[in-house]
Amino acid sequence: MAFEDPFGADTSETRTAIMRATYAALIEHGYENLTIQRIGDEFPKSKSLIYQHYDGKDEVLVELLEFLLDHFETQMPPPTTANAHDCLRTVLDFVLAAEPENDRIELTKVMVELRGQAPHNETFRSYFAESDRQFRQELATIVDRGIEQGVYRSVDSEAVAEMLLTAMNGGTVRRATTDGDVDIAATRTELDAYIRARLLREDEESDGGKGELS
Amino acid sequence: MAFEDPFGADTSETRTAIMRATYAALIEHGYENLTIQRIGDEFPKSKSLIYQHYDGKDEVLVELLEFLLDHFETQMPPPTTANAHDCLRTVLDFVLAAEPENDRIELTKVMVELRGQAPHNETFRSYFAESDRQFRQELATIVDRGIEQGVYRSVDSEAVAEMLLTAMNGGTVRRATTDGDVDIAATRTELDAYIRARLLREDEESDGGKGELS
Repeated sequence: MAFEDPFGADTSETRTAIMRATYAALIEHGYENLTIQRIGDEFPKSKSLIYQHYDGKDEVLVELLEFLLDHFETQMPPPTTANAHDCLRTVLDFVLAAEPENDRIELTKVMVELRGQAPHNETFRSYFAESDRQFRQELATIVDRGIEQGVYRSVDSEAVAEMLLTAMNGGTVRRATTDGDVDIAATRTELDAYIRARLLREDEESDGGKGELS
Repeated sequence: MAFEDPFGADTSETRTAIMRATYAALIEHGYENLTIQRIGDEFPKSKSLIYQHYDGKDEVLVELLEFLLDHFETQMPPPTTANAHDCLRTVLDFVLAAEPENDRIELTKVMVELRGQAPHNETFRSYFAESDRQFRQELATIVDRGIEQGVYRSVDSEAVAEMLLTAMNGGTVRRATTDGDVDIAATRTELDAYIRARLLREDEESDGGKGELS
């Protein structure tokens, strides 16, 4: 699945233009050295528009996080797709992509860096608590649908969702914070083994354990 | 397992005293607002000793990370303990503790915050790449020992270690970056299910799936 530019081609809308400038400044300077001034340097319109809308960098950044999360959600496979197991695999394929595009890599770095502020920044902590909650709920809904469809065993969907979210988060964070030394494919293989053993009903495993459904 | 103060009671040694001061300043100010001056404010001896040994805050922080990792390793169960499965469970009990002590919570926050610098800080990225590598190797060694002891199936120990490390990292990061909304116990239950299904040999599963070995 191709990952689309979060900001599209149209820079005419002010909010989108501020978000684009913030993102560019964040990639260039990192959180620590980010200032409203530096966001303004990336902004093609009058800088006063930024000062007019935001009190400080954290306020712009929380809006950027919400903007990026909305975008990320539009990139995720729709939860109504075919059967639940296909859907879950598509989510894992997307989040734990073996070779993500450069834009995805940059986005992940930005998200991980901002998450790293959360231990000492209540605004960011609330944001990540809420985004984790939403994502976990979406995963649990997929698992529940698999149970209804008779594809998955009658498991605790909330616990399974917690585990999947935690592993995806770990993979994402480790990939962004080490020097390419993370074997995402191994994590994915082992997660698939977990899903086969824990979720897939016996009669669905007869395909030789590949998790392929007819 | 009680978590011991990384700095002990003895503050007479200069390096330990600088590490203690850095840690205190980091907890108080966070990475962004940390300065050598502020580390000096927490240091009971002459501040010139700090300026004499370190060029900037990242240099002190990398040494702090190494200091904390060494401490963390001493807190981990020795890899020669009894059988490999007990050993693996002790590691998981420790890292994914349901109710860690306050000192552990503070330490985790500091580590997660510094890891959050890694996407834009090569020094930290190298450090976390190396510490992940070490930890993964220790986990793989435990799994290999389990295979030799006939407790575990003949699995790809490197892949299993990658998965376990990724899940532990995700649990640690999510716990430090959300508002207590992480169900670590659920992740642990599901990881245990993964270990039973993937690692434990059939004849070891006859205990009702609790993973308890006689």
